[in-house]
Amino acid sequence: MNPSRRPLYFDDLHVGDKFPTASVTVTEAEIIAFAQLYDPQPFHTDPAAAPASLFGRLVASGWHTAALTMRLLVQGEFQLAGGSVGLGVEKLEWPRPVLPGDTLTVVTEVVEKRPSSSKPDRGLVRARSTTFNQRQEPVQRLSALLIVLCRPA
Amino acid sequence: MNPSRRPLYFDDLHVGDKFPTASVTVTEAEIIAFAQLYDPQPFHTDPAAAPASLFGRLVASGWHTAALTMRLLVQGEFQLAGGSVGLGVEKLEWPRPVLPGDTLTVVTEVVEKRPSSSKPDRGLVRARSTTFNQRQEPVQRLSALLIVLCRPA
Repeated sequence: MNPSRRPLYFDDLHVGDKFPTASVTVTEAEIIAFAQLYDPQPFHTDPAAAPASLFGRLVASGWHTAALTMRLLVQGEFQLAGGSVGLGVEKLEWPRPVLPGDTLTVVTEVVEKRPSSSKPDRGLVRARSTTFNQRQEPVQRLSALLIVLCRPA
Repeated sequence: MNPSRRPLYFDDLHVGDKFPTASVTVTEAEIIAFAQLYDPQPFHTDPAAAPASLFGRLVASGWHTAALTMRLLVQGEFQLAGGSVGLGVEKLEWPRPVLPGDTLTVVTEVVEKRPSSSKPDRGLVRARSTTFNQRQEPVQRLSALLIVLCRPA
């Protein structure tokens, strides 16, 4: 928890720490607008064609779910000094789709931390961020390796 | 290769097959617009503040790179029957940032395929999509497990 949203340094993070975010409600219009720009497939852009698709209805692009999750993270309690900079994503799963009207929230847990072997001013943190809908069902599981600055001496 | 962009069924895909996309050039305005909506951090939104950041300059959000990659894939030669539907992403790395003015293109390689154990009308395909900038440097490596329909009998 970090309700003050003060920037967290590597030294402030402990395995098992959990950080919540605010929530966001996704509209059908936003789902379609994102998909028209970045994932133009009928099950993301066309409410009339979506019922005949693999999903059976209009659903958000998984990349839209990922982008909304990032916004919640950036504005939530998991505020890292130097910003939220990922070295890479080790897992990104969408166990169920996001539907128009869904309200999303994210919980991030620190899973591992280790000092950088090459740069003494920073460390690496493995964080697991799970995105839930309003029924507390996971819609995305993200595991990422982040660069976090050490507190200046 | 699939220059006709006809929909590919599970039966049409072979390990080692490679599929290119068109290219897209990313502007500073688009980098900022995406980040203001989905990754509002100064090194993605503020050309004046970015030089003092970990990146040292304005760079695209990795999620923006991922979204642009998805658009190139959807419009490229790797056209799957039923659409491009990911079960999940097994790896997503950003070995270097995307900068304003960069031109991106994607190559997808089929790495593995296996029939679905539960549904005889489909299979699973592991695909590796690498996004390159105009200097042929990789800016994103994506490995995903996709659901692909079998050709109807």
